[in-house]
Order: sequence, then C-alpha cells, then structure tokens
Amino acid sequence: MTGASVGVDVGGTKILAVLLDAAGHVLAEAREATPPGADAPGVVVADAIGLALDSLADTARLELTSLPLGVGVPGMLSRDGTLVFAPNLQSASGADLSTVLTARLGRTVELANDADAAAVAEHRLGAARGIDEFVMVTLGTGIGGGVISEGRLVRGANGFAGEIGHLVVDTSGPRCPCGKRGCWERYASGAGVARLAREAATAGRLGSLVEQLGDAEAVRGEDVTHAAAAGDRQAIAVLEEVGWWLALGLSNLAAVLDPACFVLGGGLAEASAQLLPATRRHLTGLLEAGELRPEIPVIAAELGHRAGAIGAALIAASP
Amino acid sequence: MTGASVGVDVGGTKILAVLLDAAGHVLAEAREATPPGADAPGVVVADAIGLALDSLADTARLELTSLPLGVGVPGMLSRDGTLVFAPNLQSASGADLSTVLTARLGRTVELANDADAAAVAEHRLGAARGIDEFVMVTLGTGIGGGVISEGRLVRGANGFAGEIGHLVVDTSGPRCPCGKRGCWERYASGAGVARLAREAATAGRLGSLVEQLGDAEAVRGEDVTHAAAAGDRQAIAVLEEVGWWLALGLSNLAAVLDPACFVLGGGLAEASAQLLPATRRHLTGLLEAGELRPEIPVIAAELGHRAGAIGAALIAASP
Repeated sequence: MTGASVGVDVGGTKILAVLLDAAGHVLAEAREATPPGADAPGVVVADAIGLALDSLADTARLELTSLPLGVGVPGMLSRDGTLVFAPNLQSASGADLSTVLTARLGRTVELANDADAAAVAEHRLGAARGIDEFVMVTLGTGIGGGVISEGRLVRGANGFAGEIGHLVVDTSGPRCPCGKRGCWERYASGAGVARLAREAATAGRLGSLVEQLGDAEAVRGEDVTHAAAAGDRQAIAVLEEVGWWLALGLSNLAAVLDPACFVLGGGLAEASAQLLPATRRHLTGLLEAGELRPEIPVIAAELGHRAGAIGAALIAASP
Repeated sequence: MTGASVGVDVGGTKILAVLLDAAGHVLAEAREATPPGADAPGVVVADAIGLALDSLADTARLELTSLPLGVGVPGMLSRDGTLVFAPNLQSASGADLSTVLTARLGRTVELANDADAAAVAEHRLGAARGIDEFVMVTLGTGIGGGVISEGRLVRGANGFAGEIGHLVVDTSGPRCPCGKRGCWERYASGAGVARLAREAATAGRLGSLVEQLGDAEAVRGEDVTHAAAAGDRQAIAVLEEVGWWLALGLSNLAAVLDPACFVLGGGLAEASAQLLPATRRHLTGLLEAGELRPEIPVIAAELGHRAGAIGAALIAASP
C-alpha cells in the first residue's frame, strides 16, 4: 500500500474514516456515531475514532496501523493539537487531542481543522484542481472555511485561520452562540436558512409550507430546500435571500483575499439547487469594483461528505 | 550604492520619493504635489513621479537611474500593473500604469499597492520585524491593508488582496462610495471619525467642541483627535466608539487570518493617543473564544508616513 493513508472526519453527529490510495481513490470507508460528552475532554471521541479505524480495517481486510493517519475536527485547533474551542464537538472542546489520540491509538496522528482538510481535498482531487488561490466554504449547521493561497493552506499564527462563519456582517443582527451579534453563519448556513425561513413564515410568507407543517415555528431549513426543489416560489424567495447573505460574506472574503474562485460544499450546498445560482447573481454587485475586475466563480465542491476525511488523509500523507 | 533602491509612494495629495540604502536607511527624500485629473489616465501622475525622482537625485547628488525603482499606489492594482480602481487617485484610475510609467521614465518599475508596501516595510524594518503572520492596517481617509502570511505578502489571484476597508460590518450602515453599505472604513478611518463625530455633535454630545466651532456640521476628524488629546471627555468618548468599530473589523480579520499581531499605521493612528488603547480594550471581547486563545497585540507602526515609499523601495530591491 505505498502512498496510501487513512483519514478520519469527526463531525458533530458522526465519524467517517476512509482508506485512500496514492492516486486519491477511496478504497474503503467506515462510520461511527459521535458519542455525547463526558468528563475528560476528548476521551470518548478518541474511543469512537478507534472503533471507526477498527471497522475500516475490517472492511478493507488490511492492517492499517502502519499507514499515515490524519484526523479532521470541527473548531479552533491549535498548531500543537489542542482543540481550543469546538461548540459542535462539546465532548472534545478544550482537549489536548494530540496527546489523547496518541495515547488511545498508540500512534502519531496528524490533526487538522475539518474545513481546512476539505480545502486540501478539493485542491488536490476536487473542484479546485490547479487553482492555487481559493476559499473553501462549507455550509453545514454553521459555516467552516479553508483558505488556500499560493497553493498552500493558510493556517495563521495559532492554526485558527479560516473561522469565516464568525465574520460579523451586521452588528445589529441576531446573537450568535460565539457571543457576538450578526455573524455570517446566522444568515448563510443551515441554521441561517431555518432562521430566515421562520422569519418569513411568521411574516406570512411561506404560506403553503406553513399550512403543510401546521406551525410557522416548525419550519426547518430542510423544509425550505425541499419545498424550493418542488417549485414553491416563496421557498425559492427565502433561498434567494440566503444567497444574498452568502454573496455578502463572500464579497468580504474577496476584499481580504482576492481568491480566483470560491468552492462551496457542505450539506446545505448539496441540498439546494437554487442556492449557488442565487449567490452568483448577487456576488458581482457586492464586490468592490465588481464590474471592473474579473468575475469570481462560485463553484460546487466535488467530494461531497467525504471531503474532510479525504483531506485529513492527504494531509497525513504529506503534511 | 550596492543594494540601494528608490521607492515612491503616490498618495491622494502628495508624492514622496526616498533613496534607501542596503541597510534600510533613508539617505534622501523628495516630495511633489499629486496633480489633479487629466484625460489620459496616469500620465500626469507619471510626470509628477518623474519630477519627484529628479528632485530626489538633486537632493542626493547622485545618478539614481540605475537603481531598482518601486512605486506604491493607492487602490486595486492588478498583477500586470493596471490600476483597476483607485477612488483616491482619480487621475490614474484605470491606467495601465506599468506601461505609462515605463514610457515616461524610460525604465522598468516595480509597482505595488501602497498598504502592501507599508506591510513589507514594517515587516523588514519596522514594528513587525520577526513576525511572519500579521495584518498591516493603514488608517487614513479610508482603510488600507496588507496581509503577511508565512513571511510573505498575500497578493491574491489578481493582486487585489488586502482591500480590508470594504469589509461590510453593518448591512444597514451608511452608504460607501464603493457602492455598498456599512463598509468598515465608514466607521474606523479618518472619514469614520468625522462621521461619528458629526453624529455625536448633532445628538448634543461634543458640546464644548461644537461651541468652539460654532456648528455641529463643521466638526472634522482632526478636531476630535485634538480635543481628545487636550482631555475633552466627550471627544475621548467618540474615539472610544471608533476604537470599538476598529476592534470589530480587526476581529473579522482575525477570524479569517489568525494573525500574531495587527500593526496600525496611517495619519489617524499617529494623530490619536487614545485610539489604540481603546481598540485593545475592545478586541479580546470581540474575538471568537477571545478568553481561550492567545491575545492578539495591536501595535503602532514605526515607519510613519515613509512606510509606503520605504516598502516600495524594498519590493523593488528584492521583488
């Protein structure tokens, strides 16, 4: 298995492990549920990663312990392997993950932020092959980010670069769990779709969807993307609004980084055929000198829900 | 003159040329007024740069035409030397500056964005010596920016990276000349101080300053920084508010880039002893997980009004 490596993506609800060959093909994969919190930060997550790796070895019918191992995690991961802040992985928030994982697995582990890992995967094997200046934007419950500049991941002084969901876009906006007001992910993530949809429903728009669900407060993001896919014009209007907010945040990233393109991935990007076109329609008008500069394409990620695990494997193979 | 180089900084009102030796000392300098607009973009600016260089050669009593020459300009400069958009240098906005300058000066010129040049200067010779992850923030009429990552200038796909003044921080904020609403530089620049001061004056705060000037509408940014320096508590309160907005924008940059520090320069940063302390007081509270991560120092630039010209000379000496 020359050049093969193993990657693990730890999400808020599930853990995905993949075996990647030297050509970037996924040879086997395995899943575990992400366990809830416990007293010692990181320990239950380390156990679950261990189970996922055992399951992956069973599936692949191979001994995998000699292969490079990378693990992607959500949240602010410091360069020394401490998961400083991880609201979507409470059981490991604050953990010295490098030490905990090495102790549990009996081997060294290359750790990465999950969206950083996805950026590396899309750069080497996905939508951004050959593009050395781009921003990966993962639209899940929140927004994750990975910045590639001159072909390399921008990690920042501590490893916290790419926390783009917490760009403040409206100081008088809704409160964010991070403590600030008006963070971008309050508008342009899965949670943002749900919030804007409830606002629309309460204001009497989204009539047919509310009639179907029986209660404006019950409207979830998925309900909106499904209704929009079925042609509901009011649901499409909500996604148009989300697209405007998405474009606004992208224009902020463009001001700082001037990327050649944006790659959009994550569950929300996959669920909605309307969102990317809406975002593209609004972006040029929101860019400084938008009519005078080259267009910044907004393209769909190609590696789907495996991007983080594949990226973690790639980072482990050549850190 | 081994290793010496010449740098020019083209501002909205004046042009500064410096002769820099290999050790980074300014051996001579010269100034010209920036000329107003004309029909052919860039031509009058090229003429004025030519005059500044003649004047510099006279002052230095040296023939300088064989030395590397760098020119820093405000605005969105593309990698091929076109000044795509420059609201503060209307006479050169849209110019193919590389061609125009080469034709007028009879030599090759290394072009750079002015704040990028200042970032390089502070990195090699100023406040950020030895710091390889930082953002240079120049507070003038607007806000300019230069991003250093892994010791290198982040230029972006087209050369437009670091246009940080146009980060939108409040979508319901005041209209910006760039066409958007609520850009950071509407709050945290010289123009921002003036705007917030007029708001305060109209609301009846800034009483003694308005009494002195006779009219709330007449309050300029400089009046506020002077009054604050003289101990006027209401003027200090306005700078405290500006410091909050400054910290908010820095927290946005921290989310994307995770710098080891911010270096603040430009006329406004120099004019106010209150602004940097106010910004520092607010920054930690505005950062995601501010209490869990290392502090991000906000430090004053060291090279003053020469930073851009010095940086342009450094970029020309080793592009």
